[in-house]
Amino acid sequence: MEAGTRAREATDLGRLVAFTDGVFAIAITLLVLNLDVPSVTGDRDLDDELLKLWPELLAYFLSFAVVGRFWLVHHRVFAGLHSFDGWLLGLNLAYLSFVVLVPFTTEILDTYGDHRSAVITYAGVLTLAGLVNWAMIRYSLDAGHVHPDARDASAEAARGAALYVPIVFALSIPVAFIHPYATMAMWVLLVLARPLSRRVRR
Amino acid sequence: MEAGTRAREATDLGRLVAFTDGVFAIAITLLVLNLDVPSVTGDRDLDDELLKLWPELLAYFLSFAVVGRFWLVHHRVFAGLHSFDGWLLGLNLAYLSFVVLVPFTTEILDTYGDHRSAVITYAGVLTLAGLVNWAMIRYSLDAGHVHPDARDASAEAARGAALYVPIVFALSIPVAFIHPYATMAMWVLLVLARPLSRRVRR
Amino acid sequence: MEAGTRAREATDLGRLVAFTDGVFAIAITLLVLNLDVPSVTGDRDLDDELLKLWPELLAYFLSFAVVGRFWLVHHRVFAGLHSFDGWLLGLNLAYLSFVVLVPFTTEILDTYGDHRSAVITYAGVLTLAGLVNWAMIRYSLDAGHVHPDARDASAEAARGAALYVPIVFALSIPVAFIHPYATMAMWVLLVLARPLSRRVRR
Amino acid sequence: MEAGTRAREATDLGRLVAFTDGVFAIAITLLVLNLDVPSVTGDRDLDDELLKLWPELLAYFLSFAVVGRFWLVHHRVFAGLHSFDGWLLGLNLAYLSFVVLVPFTTEILDTYGDHRSAVITYAGVLTLAGLVNWAMIRYSLDAGHVHPDARDASAEAARGAALYVPIVFALSIPVAFIHPYATMAMWVLLVLARPLSRRVRR
Repeated sequence: MEAGTRAREATDLGRLVAFTDGVFAIAITLLVLNLDVPSVTGDRDLDDELLKLWPELLAYFLSFAVVGRFWLVHHRVFAGLHSFDGWLLGLNLAYLSFVVLVPFTTEILDTYGDHRSAVITYAGVLTLAGLVNWAMIRYSLDAGHVHPDARDASAEAARGAALYVPIVFALSIPVAFIHPYATMAMWVLLVLARPLSRRVRR
Repeated sequence: MEAGTRAREATDLGRLVAFTDGVFAIAITLLVLNLDVPSVTGDRDLDDELLKLWPELLAYFLSFAVVGRFWLVHHRVFAGLHSFDGWLLGLNLAYLSFVVLVPFTTEILDTYGDHRSAVITYAGVLTLAGLVNWAMIRYSLDAGHVHPDARDASAEAARGAALYVPIVFALSIPVAFIHPYATMAMWVLLVLARPLSRRVRR
Repeated sequence: MEAGTRAREATDLGRLVAFTDGVFAIAITLLVLNLDVPSVTGDRDLDDELLKLWPELLAYFLSFAVVGRFWLVHHRVFAGLHSFDGWLLGLNLAYLSFVVLVPFTTEILDTYGDHRSAVITYAGVLTLAGLVNWAMIRYSLDAGHVHPDARDASAEAARGAALYVPIVFALSIPVAFIHPYATMAMWVLLVLARPLSRRVRR
Repeated sequence: MEAGTRAREATDLGRLVAFTDGVFAIAITLLVLNLDVPSVTGDRDLDDELLKLWPELLAYFLSFAVVGRFWLVHHRVFAGLHSFDGWLLGLNLAYLSFVVLVPFTTEILDTYGDHRSAVITYAGVLTLAGLVNWAMIRYSLDAGHVHPDARDASAEAARGAALYVPIVFALSIPVAFIHPYATMAMWVLLVLARPLSRRVRR
């Protein structure tokens, strides 16, 4: 590959990343639209109604953390790419189409958090998103799109950070048959509480 | 053109592309707002209601794929530009004004998928978007804005990828007079199923 | 100013422009949320209802063209900057706060296009946006933030393109006292029809 | 650190900043969705209804100024970074999760501006956002992520601009027990009226 092509390739990759970042930024920000201002009618108090928002707020912060974590993994993996092809573009679009569903599945969770099928829908979309993400990293490695210096980090991501989220959410689906709240407790513990120190080692 | 002007031109083009990517990223993400959380009343089950969302989800993935494909073509064509002018800016804005309509026409399709005029509206907007896109590529070539190295790829895009979407959607309009569902089947087959391998050859 | 500071200044300016582009891209895309899917009840036909959307679509394309034109002017003026300061940041934020109102005033126009006060509100916000934009360009020139090579172009923008939109909209306000539709006709003629050829001369 | 790693680090930081700018741009633009087109029924006049929007517009401009000010501080502090780590990424995400809440707390304020708990919610979220922002700056300094040339400016931001907003909003919470409007007057005076001249000294 000559220098000019390489430079153009780098610009292209930059634009792909910029588009992806835009989609992530919008999807994470749209989460706020799920929070509904309570309507205070009769003799109920606004204080009480605002306090009752905590499950919606918990779902908001959980989804924010999940989408943020997806972005972090994407960010780290794409920083190691030195080329890409049409299949990778297609996988990236498919991946984004699941990430963009998160504000919707969060809204389902907000509304029907005590229903098993709401919990399974939420976990299912995140499992799928995580699997496509994992496939994208594996494909990048196999097709030789990862810069030699970054191969170890990407391979580690494919084994670790990128698989962590889909495994947690896949495992949480059967738990929903015990109780929806058990599933949610599992998410909060395993997603929010995962030691940040892991991410320091880069 | 001296080096300074050339550098400024490159920055300008970068900003035009960044703005366009932003609009694409937002339009594709707003598609999620069309998905409505079902309201479960009486003795109906949430499971059933969620399963009944499949036509909305199909419309979501179809529009995501169409807008994503538009972005890919734009991305490839603009990577080959080395200059631009006011007409190209105007055509690009006109093109974006049709792309941004897609979340709206998708919502019409969600609500009235069995009405012929909903299907025709959806196909019509995409046909127009595709035609403006095609005109933009033709104009770039004719006005000498395409880098010599990229002329062949752009000319191929003008004949191929860029015309594919408007032709599919234009041809699908008369099919709607047979049955709206026949039109939709045609879209899914021809848009989602178009071999990705084509995109690998870059 | 030493080379390091200059480089940092350029990065800063790049980030300011990226943030501004993001706001423009979102504001222009949110215009689509004003289009309401018609509800077909009783014996009315979807075809008729869709055709009745034309005033909403006209307002959509008008606002898209206005925001797009604002972006073009901003783009051209900021391409000529080589530094900025806190006042320019403040003016830019104030300017954006009026641009972001456009989806709202467009919605007012959609709903009450035959009311004089709706038309005046729409024109008033655009007049204010245009004036802040003009003040921003004047300030950039006076404070020496414009690169010497770009001074003529910026001064021309301050006299021409940047003043065109606020003058058209300011003059259209008294016309609303004749009839709201006369005002709208004036906008369409003067904004959409302004020769694109002007923009080619860069 | 070798040159290649340094270059990759710079790209990474650029992508982090681009993502953050995207979130800020969307959050600030979503504020417009809180403005509701008045419904004119019976014999009330649109003029009157539009004039009655002033508290909503005031809340809009206040939140726009607050989010804009947050962005300015972020912009200035991140311009001085030459590296980052996982903790900083985590703090930045936590910070963004509070910034993204602003359109929601603004909507609460729009609807229940005369309720003490609405005012406290609004001030509370901004206090938290400001504290996380302050912690992020402090951490950057302590962990050695700030470029030596920028250390003084960042330390000054940590003592000044970054603490100003959370202190104003924290102090305004007890004032809400006197009257909600006293709190709001305090915000407008202290946030909107803070001399812009401060920002010129960079």
